[in-house]
Amino acid sequence: MLHPRIPKIWYGGDYNPEQWDEQTMQEDLRMFRLAGVDVATINVFSWALSQPDEETYRLEWLDTIIDRLYREGVYVCLATSTGAHPAWMALKYPDILRVDYEGRKRRFGGRHNSCPNSPTYRKYAGAMAAKLGERYKDHPGLAAWHISNEYGGYCYCNNCAASFRLWLKQRYGTLQRLNKVWYTAFWGHTFYDWEEIVVPNALSEEWMGNRTNFQGISLDYRRFQSESLLECYKIEYEQLKQHTPHIQITTNLMGTYPELDYFQWAKHLDVVSWDNYPSLDTPPSYTAMVHDLMRGLKSGQPFMLMEQTPSQQNWQAYTSLKRPGVMRLWSYQAIAHGADTVMFFQLRRSIGACEKYHGALIEHVGHEHTRVFRECAELGRELQVMGEKLLDSRVNAKVAIVYDWENRWAVELSSGPSVALKYTDEVHHYYDALYRMNIQVDMISVEEELAPYDIVIAPVLYMVKPGYAAKIEQFVRCGGTYVTTFFSGIVNENDIVTVGGYPGELRKVLGIWAEEIDALLPEQSNQIVLNQDRGSLKGMYDCWLLCDLIHSEGAEIVASYGSDFYKGRPVVTVNRFGEGEAWYIASSPEPQFLEDLLANLCEAKGIAPLLNAPAGVEISEREKDGKTYTFLLNHNDSPVTVDVGAEQAFELIGGKIISGATILPAKGVMILGK
Amino acid sequence: MLHPRIPKIWYGGDYNPEQWDEQTMQEDLRMFRLAGVDVATINVFSWALSQPDEETYRLEWLDTIIDRLYREGVYVCLATSTGAHPAWMALKYPDILRVDYEGRKRRFGGRHNSCPNSPTYRKYAGAMAAKLGERYKDHPGLAAWHISNEYGGYCYCNNCAASFRLWLKQRYGTLQRLNKVWYTAFWGHTFYDWEEIVVPNALSEEWMGNRTNFQGISLDYRRFQSESLLECYKIEYEQLKQHTPHIQITTNLMGTYPELDYFQWAKHLDVVSWDNYPSLDTPPSYTAMVHDLMRGLKSGQPFMLMEQTPSQQNWQAYTSLKRPGVMRLWSYQAIAHGADTVMFFQLRRSIGACEKYHGALIEHVGHEHTRVFRECAELGRELQVMGEKLLDSRVNAKVAIVYDWENRWAVELSSGPSVALKYTDEVHHYYDALYRMNIQVDMISVEEELAPYDIVIAPVLYMVKPGYAAKIEQFVRCGGTYVTTFFSGIVNENDIVTVGGYPGELRKVLGIWAEEIDALLPEQSNQIVLNQDRGSLKGMYDCWLLCDLIHSEGAEIVASYGSDFYKGRPVVTVNRFGEGEAWYIASSPEPQFLEDLLANLCEAKGIAPLLNAPAGVEISEREKDGKTYTFLLNHNDSPVTVDVGAEQAFELIGGKIISGATILPAKGVMILGK
Amino acid sequence: MLHPRIPKIWYGGDYNPEQWDEQTMQEDLRMFRLAGVDVATINVFSWALSQPDEETYRLEWLDTIIDRLYREGVYVCLATSTGAHPAWMALKYPDILRVDYEGRKRRFGGRHNSCPNSPTYRKYAGAMAAKLGERYKDHPGLAAWHISNEYGGYCYCNNCAASFRLWLKQRYGTLQRLNKVWYTAFWGHTFYDWEEIVVPNALSEEWMGNRTNFQGISLDYRRFQSESLLECYKIEYEQLKQHTPHIQITTNLMGTYPELDYFQWAKHLDVVSWDNYPSLDTPPSYTAMVHDLMRGLKSGQPFMLMEQTPSQQNWQAYTSLKRPGVMRLWSYQAIAHGADTVMFFQLRRSIGACEKYHGALIEHVGHEHTRVFRECAELGRELQVMGEKLLDSRVNAKVAIVYDWENRWAVELSSGPSVALKYTDEVHHYYDALYRMNIQVDMISVEEELAPYDIVIAPVLYMVKPGYAAKIEQFVRCGGTYVTTFFSGIVNENDIVTVGGYPGELRKVLGIWAEEIDALLPEQSNQIVLNQDRGSLKGMYDCWLLCDLIHSEGAEIVASYGSDFYKGRPVVTVNRFGEGEAWYIASSPEPQFLEDLLANLCEAKGIAPLLNAPAGVEISEREKDGKTYTFLLNHNDSPVTVDVGAEQAFELIGGKIISGATILPAKGVMILGK
Repeated sequence: MLHPRIPKIWYGGDYNPEQWDEQTMQEDLRMFRLAGVDVATINVFSWALSQPDEETYRLEWLDTIIDRLYREGVYVCLATSTGAHPAWMALKYPDILRVDYEGRKRRFGGRHNSCPNSPTYRKYAGAMAAKLGERYKDHPGLAAWHISNEYGGYCYCNNCAASFRLWLKQRYGTLQRLNKVWYTAFWGHTFYDWEEIVVPNALSEEWMGNRTNFQGISLDYRRFQSESLLECYKIEYEQLKQHTPHIQITTNLMGTYPELDYFQWAKHLDVVSWDNYPSLDTPPSYTAMVHDLMRGLKSGQPFMLMEQTPSQQNWQAYTSLKRPGVMRLWSYQAIAHGADTVMFFQLRRSIGACEKYHGALIEHVGHEHTRVFRECAELGRELQVMGEKLLDSRVNAKVAIVYDWENRWAVELSSGPSVALKYTDEVHHYYDALYRMNIQVDMISVEEELAPYDIVIAPVLYMVKPGYAAKIEQFVRCGGTYVTTFFSGIVNENDIVTVGGYPGELRKVLGIWAEEIDALLPEQSNQIVLNQDRGSLKGMYDCWLLCDLIHSEGAEIVASYGSDFYKGRPVVTVNRFGEGEAWYIASSPEPQFLEDLLANLCEAKGIAPLLNAPAGVEISEREKDGKTYTFLLNHNDSPVTVDVGAEQAFELIGGKIISGATILPAKGVMILGK
Repeated sequence: MLHPRIPKIWYGGDYNPEQWDEQTMQEDLRMFRLAGVDVATINVFSWALSQPDEETYRLEWLDTIIDRLYREGVYVCLATSTGAHPAWMALKYPDILRVDYEGRKRRFGGRHNSCPNSPTYRKYAGAMAAKLGERYKDHPGLAAWHISNEYGGYCYCNNCAASFRLWLKQRYGTLQRLNKVWYTAFWGHTFYDWEEIVVPNALSEEWMGNRTNFQGISLDYRRFQSESLLECYKIEYEQLKQHTPHIQITTNLMGTYPELDYFQWAKHLDVVSWDNYPSLDTPPSYTAMVHDLMRGLKSGQPFMLMEQTPSQQNWQAYTSLKRPGVMRLWSYQAIAHGADTVMFFQLRRSIGACEKYHGALIEHVGHEHTRVFRECAELGRELQVMGEKLLDSRVNAKVAIVYDWENRWAVELSSGPSVALKYTDEVHHYYDALYRMNIQVDMISVEEELAPYDIVIAPVLYMVKPGYAAKIEQFVRCGGTYVTTFFSGIVNENDIVTVGGYPGELRKVLGIWAEEIDALLPEQSNQIVLNQDRGSLKGMYDCWLLCDLIHSEGAEIVASYGSDFYKGRPVVTVNRFGEGEAWYIASSPEPQFLEDLLANLCEAKGIAPLLNAPAGVEISEREKDGKTYTFLLNHNDSPVTVDVGAEQAFELIGGKIISGATILPAKGVMILGK
Repeated sequence: MLHPRIPKIWYGGDYNPEQWDEQTMQEDLRMFRLAGVDVATINVFSWALSQPDEETYRLEWLDTIIDRLYREGVYVCLATSTGAHPAWMALKYPDILRVDYEGRKRRFGGRHNSCPNSPTYRKYAGAMAAKLGERYKDHPGLAAWHISNEYGGYCYCNNCAASFRLWLKQRYGTLQRLNKVWYTAFWGHTFYDWEEIVVPNALSEEWMGNRTNFQGISLDYRRFQSESLLECYKIEYEQLKQHTPHIQITTNLMGTYPELDYFQWAKHLDVVSWDNYPSLDTPPSYTAMVHDLMRGLKSGQPFMLMEQTPSQQNWQAYTSLKRPGVMRLWSYQAIAHGADTVMFFQLRRSIGACEKYHGALIEHVGHEHTRVFRECAELGRELQVMGEKLLDSRVNAKVAIVYDWENRWAVELSSGPSVALKYTDEVHHYYDALYRMNIQVDMISVEEELAPYDIVIAPVLYMVKPGYAAKIEQFVRCGGTYVTTFFSGIVNENDIVTVGGYPGELRKVLGIWAEEIDALLPEQSNQIVLNQDRGSLKGMYDCWLLCDLIHSEGAEIVASYGSDFYKGRPVVTVNRFGEGEAWYIASSPEPQFLEDLLANLCEAKGIAPLLNAPAGVEISEREKDGKTYTFLLNHNDSPVTVDVGAEQAFELIGGKIISGATILPAKGVMILGK
């Protein structure tokens, strides 16, 4: 449980009391009560306020706020305020300022603005964490720690360069080894002295953010920067942990944010928290996938929904309002996938600076008579009624999808085969097919244990790290079903091709050899033609993007290409291997193919949909103490009828017993307890 | 009158005699006579020529030119030549070079290239103005002064930063005040020392030119740079004024140029002049609006059309020729809206550098037997015949549209609600509706007196400055009709939200509260459904862009939304207030709605169209000594018949008496004197 | 002949043995034999490997490789390895690093990365060439020298700036002259000291790569940088020539690469070589044109196809595979147009860095059982059979098309008349019409002798250099047919307009005057209406882009515009001049017009198609020792029937006698010897 004093799904969000006068705060507290808010994230950007110079710390204002919130029943998720450094620090210690991708020294401004290898930043950020830990360690209102904020961004300064060289020395030992794994002989980049290595950015090896001459250095720089930022986090973590070993510590992650390897980060978080800001065109299944990924970071442990907007996001090109019911629907979606908190950015709207047109519980008008407040307060009431039941419940999935940040970096840094290849999108295609069938999925790292799963899917797993191939062989040998795709198994952890035929180390378990990889233009397609019907999988489907030209080396040919010069050559194969089977999907298929394929595979494993429901209705389930809580989430704009089965179930929100055909309103939610 | 020695609409343009040999100049003068040219702008970019080093001034060449032009009957609009600094100055005094938005120190090149806070620039520009003032103060050929050229562009150098800090100290007095109005507590940007403030550009708070983390600093930097450039202008102005108190001084403005607050500039110009370069797709009504805006800069005083091209603009992507008759039509359009000069860039085409494919009176062929020359000479003859009558006449309008540069900056710097929101375009929608009805409009500043107007329209007046709301209340109370729109009244002059409900200070006079602002995607629309017919306003209209979700607080609900979850809620309201009424248009309507609405409002005020004319025929009017001059401008590609009324009128160009149905040729012009 | 020891079309490509282990190399050599490889380009990027510091040279590895290849019958095209400098050199001598267009000092990375005016680069590149020359001068395996690699890219550093000033002093002698030809009086840029001149880039006169305020300086900087890079080449050339006067020296060019004036470069190459990488949408006729251009660089001398991919190019957005037969077809296309080698990049695929997904003879799988290898080996066998016959044969053309890099720079630097005007595309329109008719073309420089040609076509020859107009007059006077277009003859070699009427110096021979130039928007068109039928030229055709408004001054009006205000005015004219005629095409016509026009002109000169063949079949011819070799290249995806004529011919590839209707397979090739 997140904290014993809040035995329910937490409800609240970011609050910046330092910006408000006495009277406003009083009103805020009144409205928090009306809305059922029990937790407030505070102190996120108060570093400059709390530390006006190197020596002075002024935290009295924070004492007051925490006391006051606590008196009103609001616990604090206390941020360490190191997400943006003070202006005086930038002026006095320019090492704290980043050098950007273009090689330009930044000046003071924005946030996420500190060089992660700045001695100044590390010193003062650690000191602030220590101050806060010591000061509030015994405060009964302290619910959790929130270190910094949305870590991200890379730096390319000289301090980073020096640290990078040290990091490389530790990783590779000798330049000979480094020259080999970076393949520097190509284009004559052999290094004879560590000092010759410069950071890869727009002034050296890279351009356009993810184009590079040398994948090796670019990949390592991403690893290094992700670790450098994590190092900053860990410095604060250790300070806080010393003082409050019992309080959970987190920092808010950002879903599929590209720059940080969150699986590595999660090892150092007590609890995962993240900020959910779907774009206007994000499909619900994508959000669901990211929730599952965030849950997967710590192997299924419930997470915190740290931020979402009650209504609109100022940074969208068009700040469309969340339609009535949508905020509630999406909040429950988070809970359904493992969230134990529903928190907003922000509780009260700023009146200045760039986020003043971002939604808030309390709008600029300042009172509670708004649609947004009403919807929030209604949700607050619901959570108070049944929040405790769900807390700390788990999700049970027999299907896992592999996701890997380093693989993603490697795919995106690759020159060829197609600019249209987006790793996360390919992963989502598979997730989406299962989502549409209401089959639960765990999103797992390449390090995760596979024994709990019947089916493991690893789309575009281009990079195969040491031990992974053996693990998959073991999984399949023992009866598991493994599914992978084109552009998998090509390189090792250094982005060096495994020679002897694609898909490299996976060739044996898959029983195929991929001779060539053809890239299709955006307007081109090919077809997947079934050699014979297999359950729901039959006839012909379209496919796009890439077409591997494969040869079976033992695998059964399930389907063949329908056109082009490789018409009739295999596009889908399955290899019996030990007790299990390994599938290879050599192109990017249309959604129906994936649904039909995965329906077959699940059926063979006895994995049934949680419920049969109309299109647009999402079904997800959490379990606790032998009880299951099935979430019905209607993403449609109109009501639908769902058959919840003959067995009687207790619907938690409405508090009624239901069974059989049930009407779910537009954007409506039900939670069936059994 | 601009200058007593040229008692007619001036005719001429830019001339660069320093580039031509003796024989060419002789030909030029012969052709000027043929074309009726009586004024030449000279010396625009001759700084380097006239001042080869710090000590030396060589102006003899200019003496010769001015004398010679004068002998041929051509007066000079004498430029001060400070629009581009000499190369030697850049080499010796690098402080004169700008630092750009990306933080890069520029090197010598281009024009508009001097840092406005460079001591070197200010010193030598002022000295040059003094030299010229002294030298030519008694020359009978001197018609007007033209300071520098098309001021524009911002600098981000250390000199600017230091000046900015001084400017801020003067504006805010204390850092406490600055921290408050910039809302620095957000993201922890509190300043403790003035030196901590850095200029807002791509290295600090901004990106992409108008995206910013802090609207406060970005807004103030625009104010500061506009004033810095104005300061340069004023230094020269003062030097010239000392020597020639009787000669009018101007600098050429650029219409809706975004970077300078021209209402502030106009206070320091004796006469407004501007350069009219419509793009290929600029509608005539937009050009008309900008003419009216330029006239409005000095409250209706006639202005100078300083530049337009006789045929093509080299910097257009496709340098389409002005079709036959178009140059003449657009010249009369300028006069119709208040211009007392018709001047070209350029009188003779350059043969080198980047503007050699820009149109000119005298083309590269060098003789007068060209279409362009013939059209120009014909216009020159016309102006000689009837130019005097129109000189110094005024435009009389009962409808005003408010335009404000600081508001524009604030709207464009805003993060949300929609990237599609363009302030000037929204203003133009309202202007265009009146234009199509042939109703005269004054474009006014927020400081302008409102008493002369019956109707005042202020689209998207997001920023309400101190005193403005009271002024509007007073105007409406006394019987005026005020029209405003969505995204108005939101913030104060520092871009800080006026809390308590949108539209903030205007809420009372408008009688409404806007609870939420919904942004529509480009492909989305809603509808304006009239609650009951009101004259020409009836049925249903489309609307786009933004939809305020408003509540009436006393205002009559005129129309409601036709769809979405706010269907049936008000979209158009009118509030009776004292003797007048205040309209709120909560979305961006289709053109027909605006025409129908404004027709109603004008009719109620007894404001009639100047003339009923077919579509594409623009009607505008100037008055002088009790006589009116009505311009009929046919923008169509074919002739039209216009009923000019039963009363007999003298047509100035043709010199005939006309009445009743009259044929106006394609691109044709008539001026009816009554 | 390229080298007496390889008396056939060379076959091979780039090989990087320094990256492979012993076993891999052994396999490579075995496969080279299988594929008929007889030449390998080696040592392209081995500088860092061979020279680990300033003093030390380690070339033993290269000795071994060259010996070993030679023993296996593979000759080396030996590169000098100076295409990318070592990292140690960049660290120790930063002058070797370029400053980019944005004014940023580069750091170590990439290739083509050395400043061409760096004393360090010149010193060490020259020294390396000397070492290699000395060491291998007597090696029997040395087939040719390959200096550096794909020279390109400009530098804007202070060394370049200083060299540029010297270059300018030599070119212009005095600043007075420079000020005049750069037209610096415009915008007051007069220079009084050479030191005031800075390089033209994004910090001074230019933006967006080819936009400039002053064409003069920008044009000269392109000349200067092209010469600076050439100077680097020449330093190495002289070292090599000293040691091996008998061995041919080249560097690989890149077709229509914009930055270097290849006609100037070719004067210093013993043999032209180039890298042919068509994009996915490059039409075959464009590739054909570039082959002809590369052949034209040295007035028809056979060239080397130095690089092409066997299958895919990693840097394409979508790395589509070359379809079966395409690699062979395109290889023969190169030979048909004058190539005496067919060489690949690369013989074996890299396993790391950015080109690992570029095609290779030997794929990552490492064995010969791949489609790509099979196709390559098949071609290797064919070339061994009949390669000698074609070697050193020539192409005979009676039609020439003029191409000029300096003209291209000037057109692309021009501000106006249209951003859609692309010089090379306009040239290609004319080439393509002749290509479709199977009429051979020489692509020639403006310096080439015209006597051998009946027809000379010079599309968009905007810049007329000294003597060119007289040469054209002489050519036409003697009976030649000259064809030119809109935007020709406008400026001199300094981009200064020739006044007195367009097309300037060409006005006399063309018998017309172009009064105005109208630019059409992309969606606009006009028509070419024939005044009367002329053979195949009749009726009406569309035209686009630009429309010159011309007057005949003696020329016959062949066709007139069909619409707009210049409807009825001339668009196509022909001027009889002496014994010949000069055509002016005042707009950019549709393809059919050009085909009909050129069919007429060729017929009048007795120039017949090489063969009448179906669409998509390319016909080209080489001659040697009185025999002709006619290439039939079927670019279609299906077989076609070609009538090769009644006369019997020996088909070289199949080795059979054929005549009459013959079936040419999809992507098929025949070579008819007569």
